[in-house]
Amino acid sequence: MSETVDDRIEVDYRISAGDPEEVAHAIRVEQTIEFPFDLAPEWIQQQVVGRIESATAQDVTISYDQGVAGGGITQLLNVLWGNVSLFPGVRITDLRLPDSYLRGFRGPRFGIPGLRRLLDTPTGPLICTAVKPMGTSSADLGRMAATIAAAGFHIIKDDHGLADQPWARWTERVRVIAEHIDEANAQAGTNALYMPSLNVPADRIHDAAHEAKSVGARALLVLPGVSGFDAMRTLADDDSLALPIMAHPSFLGSNVVNPEQGLDHGVLFGTLMRLAGADISIFPNYGGRFSFSPEECLRIKTECQAPMGNIETSWPSPGGGMTLDRLTELTDFYGQDVALLVGGALHRGDLSANATAMVTTVEALSNR
Amino acid sequence: MSETVDDRIEVDYRISAGDPEEVAHAIRVEQTIEFPFDLAPEWIQQQVVGRIESATAQDVTISYDQGVAGGGITQLLNVLWGNVSLFPGVRITDLRLPDSYLRGFRGPRFGIPGLRRLLDTPTGPLICTAVKPMGTSSADLGRMAATIAAAGFHIIKDDHGLADQPWARWTERVRVIAEHIDEANAQAGTNALYMPSLNVPADRIHDAAHEAKSVGARALLVLPGVSGFDAMRTLADDDSLALPIMAHPSFLGSNVVNPEQGLDHGVLFGTLMRLAGADISIFPNYGGRFSFSPEECLRIKTECQAPMGNIETSWPSPGGGMTLDRLTELTDFYGQDVALLVGGALHRGDLSANATAMVTTVEALSNR
Repeated sequence: MSETVDDRIEVDYRISAGDPEEVAHAIRVEQTIEFPFDLAPEWIQQQVVGRIESATAQDVTISYDQGVAGGGITQLLNVLWGNVSLFPGVRITDLRLPDSYLRGFRGPRFGIPGLRRLLDTPTGPLICTAVKPMGTSSADLGRMAATIAAAGFHIIKDDHGLADQPWARWTERVRVIAEHIDEANAQAGTNALYMPSLNVPADRIHDAAHEAKSVGARALLVLPGVSGFDAMRTLADDDSLALPIMAHPSFLGSNVVNPEQGLDHGVLFGTLMRLAGADISIFPNYGGRFSFSPEECLRIKTECQAPMGNIETSWPSPGGGMTLDRLTELTDFYGQDVALLVGGALHRGDLSANATAMVTTVEALSNR
Repeated sequence: MSETVDDRIEVDYRISAGDPEEVAHAIRVEQTIEFPFDLAPEWIQQQVVGRIESATAQDVTISYDQGVAGGGITQLLNVLWGNVSLFPGVRITDLRLPDSYLRGFRGPRFGIPGLRRLLDTPTGPLICTAVKPMGTSSADLGRMAATIAAAGFHIIKDDHGLADQPWARWTERVRVIAEHIDEANAQAGTNALYMPSLNVPADRIHDAAHEAKSVGARALLVLPGVSGFDAMRTLADDDSLALPIMAHPSFLGSNVVNPEQGLDHGVLFGTLMRLAGADISIFPNYGGRFSFSPEECLRIKTECQAPMGNIETSWPSPGGGMTLDRLTELTDFYGQDVALLVGGALHRGDLSANATAMVTTVEALSNR
């Protein structure tokens, strides 16, 4: 996200259905006054309705007065992708938020430098995994987590689909896994953060976060596509929690995977995740079980780390079917500031040996 | 949503990219254990992983054990459209939730019969509008609302983009509009419900709902695509509020508008809105400013009103550029149980005359 030239919010759209000029006019009205343009008072036409800043063929830039987005992330999401999300053939390709607007947000509490300090890891990728599969008992998940912690992983998260299933209830599971990781850290001299999934009802999410912290969890996994971006922001902003937050892309895919419609990968998984306080942003890496291209993954990395006023950086976290033999390639591709997420592949063969191999490999890749 | 044959959750997918059999297997694993299938214990392969119930060419039905969706709407959304939302060429075409699962949810508090009782309107469409445009002062929005209330509208909502803009702050606006509508109702003997937009920060939404009620708002507008479906459910379930809820489709469009990817219109704007407590579900009508087809709109109406265990019906509310000359057509198309939403068109010419004309027209369309 490059700097904006003045204090307006700037959105770049690519319009591939209909007449771009007409659609651009429709967007600047739809995303603001949602009212017949000719019936609006002149000052509203000029100040409240979006302004077309440039238009070349399919690419249009519209700027919005900051006041239009008054009310925080919920209204910003509404201005960016509220009704226009219902337009076929419109895609947001970039977003520039002015520094004066960004000052209204805290962003990631830790980001890249903060997590490096917390984990005492000045260089190199973060080493992350998830405990799974669903169906496994809390005790077995705990033992699995202990093995991984002892191998020296930085972050052990719940699989995001672990909610409150009968096979491992949320409260029991979080306590048991936290205890196992604590114990393993103490015995092995390691420092793994346990990150339970806050895939819980909306009226439970804050209590669940505090409960997780009270039993020893030292980080949180949030699903902003399910729980809401601003719910994640409130967790990130909570000084009595003060825990790192990893964002999972669940339910967000349709916003990015259709090339002519939706939001740019970097805007959604970079800019908006940072604005909403994600210290780490998970996305499916190219060449895994999903469909993102290397270019799309690079957009995410770029927006996770580009200058953004007072807003801290985030760690891009490529996952989704990653394997141990790709660690070097991924570190070459993303650089040192990447949170490498290997899940199921750690379980093919001996978990302890695989986990140790991953730690050894990644440590050898660190620029020290 | 037709009845399921047993107690499993059934999801129909249309697969238009890749080999349907391979993709179906990937989905049943991805949406549950997210783990190499061959490494999972046999009982997990059989009970936790989704089960392919039928497959004909591109159309596949997968069923899931209810336990997989344990934890409420957040985990149900995750099972339905979590990681698979990142698959190109997959669309959910239908969803069947068993009665035993539905009993865990309250659904709409009012629905069609409840709103008819509350509004003392035994037959005919509901007559709804929004006050706007953004930029208008609270006092002017209040006067506009009073004019519309006096004409006999059932529901007057905030435009969903009215958040906390400098031109009309949330707290002031809600109080002023509520007062104007109250006064107009008292003078004209009408019964309009004011419905402020809860497009507010996540940590404010419950307080804002109660504040709105305390100053006289008698219904609530929620944006589940922005605030989260389960946040809407918590508002619907709040016995100390006990207010009708209208859901707005903001930010949800990319989930439906790409024909080969996403969620069926009826599943998203019918089934899921009902499950999350929406008494009224707004969507863009065919032939307006947006792109839905008559068939897609009919799917929404159908799923708003189909039998669904203990879950009450919802009002389909077609909007998005509707005009007074379409009221007869829309009532013919949707039937009597429809919430007709006309916005900007009321303001072309004399607002009071247009509002009265709409009430007169719709009342003449009522089966009495």
